[in-house]
Amino acid sequence: MTNHDRFLSRAAERMQQSAIRKMGSVLASGRDIISFAPGYPAPDTFAWRDFQAIATELFAAQDGSVLQYGPTRGYRPLLETILGIQQKRGIGAPVEELIVTTGSQQGLDLVARVLIDPGDVILVERPSYVGALSAFRNVQAAMIGVAQEEDGIDLAALDDTWTRLQSDRRRVKFVYVVPNFQNPTGLLIGLDKRRRLLEWAERRDVLIVEDDPYRELYFEDSASEADVRPIKADDRTGRVVYLSSFSKTLAPGYRVAWISAPPPLAAKFEMAKQAADLLTGSLDQRIVYEACRRGVLERQLPLLRREYARKRDVMEQALRRDCDDLVSWPKPKGGFFLWLTLPRGIDADRMLERAIDNGVIYVAGEAFFVNALGDAGTDGRNTMRLCFSAPTTERIEAGVSRLAKTLRAEMAAVATAPASASPGAS
Amino acid sequence: MTNHDRFLSRAAERMQQSAIRKMGSVLASGRDIISFAPGYPAPDTFAWRDFQAIATELFAAQDGSVLQYGPTRGYRPLLETILGIQQKRGIGAPVEELIVTTGSQQGLDLVARVLIDPGDVILVERPSYVGALSAFRNVQAAMIGVAQEEDGIDLAALDDTWTRLQSDRRRVKFVYVVPNFQNPTGLLIGLDKRRRLLEWAERRDVLIVEDDPYRELYFEDSASEADVRPIKADDRTGRVVYLSSFSKTLAPGYRVAWISAPPPLAAKFEMAKQAADLLTGSLDQRIVYEACRRGVLERQLPLLRREYARKRDVMEQALRRDCDDLVSWPKPKGGFFLWLTLPRGIDADRMLERAIDNGVIYVAGEAFFVNALGDAGTDGRNTMRLCFSAPTTERIEAGVSRLAKTLRAEMAAVATAPASASPGAS
Repeated sequence: MTNHDRFLSRAAERMQQSAIRKMGSVLASGRDIISFAPGYPAPDTFAWRDFQAIATELFAAQDGSVLQYGPTRGYRPLLETILGIQQKRGIGAPVEELIVTTGSQQGLDLVARVLIDPGDVILVERPSYVGALSAFRNVQAAMIGVAQEEDGIDLAALDDTWTRLQSDRRRVKFVYVVPNFQNPTGLLIGLDKRRRLLEWAERRDVLIVEDDPYRELYFEDSASEADVRPIKADDRTGRVVYLSSFSKTLAPGYRVAWISAPPPLAAKFEMAKQAADLLTGSLDQRIVYEACRRGVLERQLPLLRREYARKRDVMEQALRRDCDDLVSWPKPKGGFFLWLTLPRGIDADRMLERAIDNGVIYVAGEAFFVNALGDAGTDGRNTMRLCFSAPTTERIEAGVSRLAKTLRAEMAAVATAPASASPGAS
Repeated sequence: MTNHDRFLSRAAERMQQSAIRKMGSVLASGRDIISFAPGYPAPDTFAWRDFQAIATELFAAQDGSVLQYGPTRGYRPLLETILGIQQKRGIGAPVEELIVTTGSQQGLDLVARVLIDPGDVILVERPSYVGALSAFRNVQAAMIGVAQEEDGIDLAALDDTWTRLQSDRRRVKFVYVVPNFQNPTGLLIGLDKRRRLLEWAERRDVLIVEDDPYRELYFEDSASEADVRPIKADDRTGRVVYLSSFSKTLAPGYRVAWISAPPPLAAKFEMAKQAADLLTGSLDQRIVYEACRRGVLERQLPLLRREYARKRDVMEQALRRDCDDLVSWPKPKGGFFLWLTLPRGIDADRMLERAIDNGVIYVAGEAFFVNALGDAGTDGRNTMRLCFSAPTTERIEAGVSRLAKTLRAEMAAVATAPASASPGAS
């Protein structure tokens, strides 16, 4: 047989299976597992009837363009619709800024390929979205994590990091942030901090990659439309590459998202996308366009905010009921995730096997942290990401009970184990 | 304003707009242009009613997985279906070989990223599919073209090229071929040559990347099922990475294709795809699966073979009628394309402006040729690719008339112009 290792690129040698997506095999086993792991929207919120009506009409019209190849930039009426969505968010970009992407994951991949050479330095929040880390790792970026405060990325730490790199003659190409209900922490960058971050990027000649999939999902008891204003809205000099998506608001199965970027970069993203997949699915783009045009998206948003806020409430109540003495978390003001810190000495990754035995899964926090080489680090071992958006409220309650039981058993086991069995405890 | 050029990766600096896809702007101008340019299937062949019935049922069932995130490898029943399709083609691969891709363009991109480091040498047919060249160029491959004979790639030239590179200590990672009705030439690699190519790859320790989107579209007057047997079918040692697609048989707007590769490579393609777009559209995969399960694909294939053979006939007859004295071409035995050679001294790219004035477009041949650096070369200036699959037969006839008129006018202009105006004439 052929030895295939000798044929791999350096990037491929370092590619890793996503910590989130490999959970899929556990779920596929058919056992009764309550999953807080992947960040899925709730399928019972999907606008099934509207989508059915739209698809039926699209196929009945037999308009070839619904199933044909089409422009790499995207279906023009959808691009115009996205311009309108961005205007409501305060972003006054022209259509030359826009490109439809096959999910925001493709957007991150295009950003990576157009901006990063192997070894180039980029800064990411610590912790940060694991899918972005994968896209950046696959082009061999040198990723350096920057700590977060209650109101998002620590600007003093950011500038310290930049200065230290500068003195090593290492240039920072961009800083990657998820300002609204960050994945995985659920944190929101404060408005004042957003402005200062933009000023900092200008001063230090660094781009900002702003990933904004959750902004429509603010919870009205703790955040408002004003709080989620994109950094991009105040960008006057072309510093910000902005990504957003229909995956969390209409459905992820359509794989329709977009990038808004200064036109010289947008032109390169288009060329990169031509070679990456030619175009985003034509039918998917048409269904999403019709869902916007017919007001389906607008009707969905208040429903989704209420539904996900309610699930967040149920998860918080269950955590307080079952393990308030052991864990802590920042209250999610929107989005899909709750970021849990466990007692020191507990390793969430090591605990996962016990959790599976108890019928519950989550994503262990360490996958969201990078060290200076962009590899999974040793930070955050006593953290985990819980997704509250997908399960029903009954399963959230039951899942938290299982999680609390798992945690107490793990603590008992760690307390009686020899110290060497717990290398992450320091 | 920010100077964005300073932020580009080396790959992005070299990215180019596809010669085919930039034709889109000409077509979007709204003028009466007959297009032989992009390789589109005929939309009047799409199985509209079947697709409508399938979509209606899928949405009515409100099965969350139709619109949810799903496994990166693809929807499991679709993977099983693809195994069956491959078995009919003689390929006995296990499911561990398979990964659904977002069109074959993504397959080519994944191949490029997993196998190629900047500067790595790969061999391509001369001319070759421009979308593959783009994907390989974007990872900074060093592409070297190998001439083709009437029955496909010239094996003596292939080995000479390999030997020359070997003596320069340059290793060849793979050879990229489109054995069935190649894009752009329409050529078919002979069966005996396929076997010898595989033996050659084994002897020289080179992988074969076999791109096979057109194999179902053989024209029964000049080719048979036996003639399109994949090289992969005879691969016993894991030499061949095989790509195929539903784009030319069901519809390209779904963006559903696949790779079949030795499991160690398939695992890497999966990791690369995770970071590239997480998964191929869920609804698209489900519609394609249902179209296979319900026999829609099987019913379509004989209709498509007849329809495209008829269009090929119409184009050949029109060419013989209007410009038989000036042009030559290999008879297409299947697929979408006819490869036209013009008189020496005519530059198809320079002639394009006149063609547009006359209301017809094509793809000038030189985009399909690479020199040793992988840039567009200077070969093939007097060639063009004509796509006969998309236009109606009436428009094929009218388009060929316009093309012949354009060619005669161009010849007259070249004959009276000073020699310096025609640098491609040598």
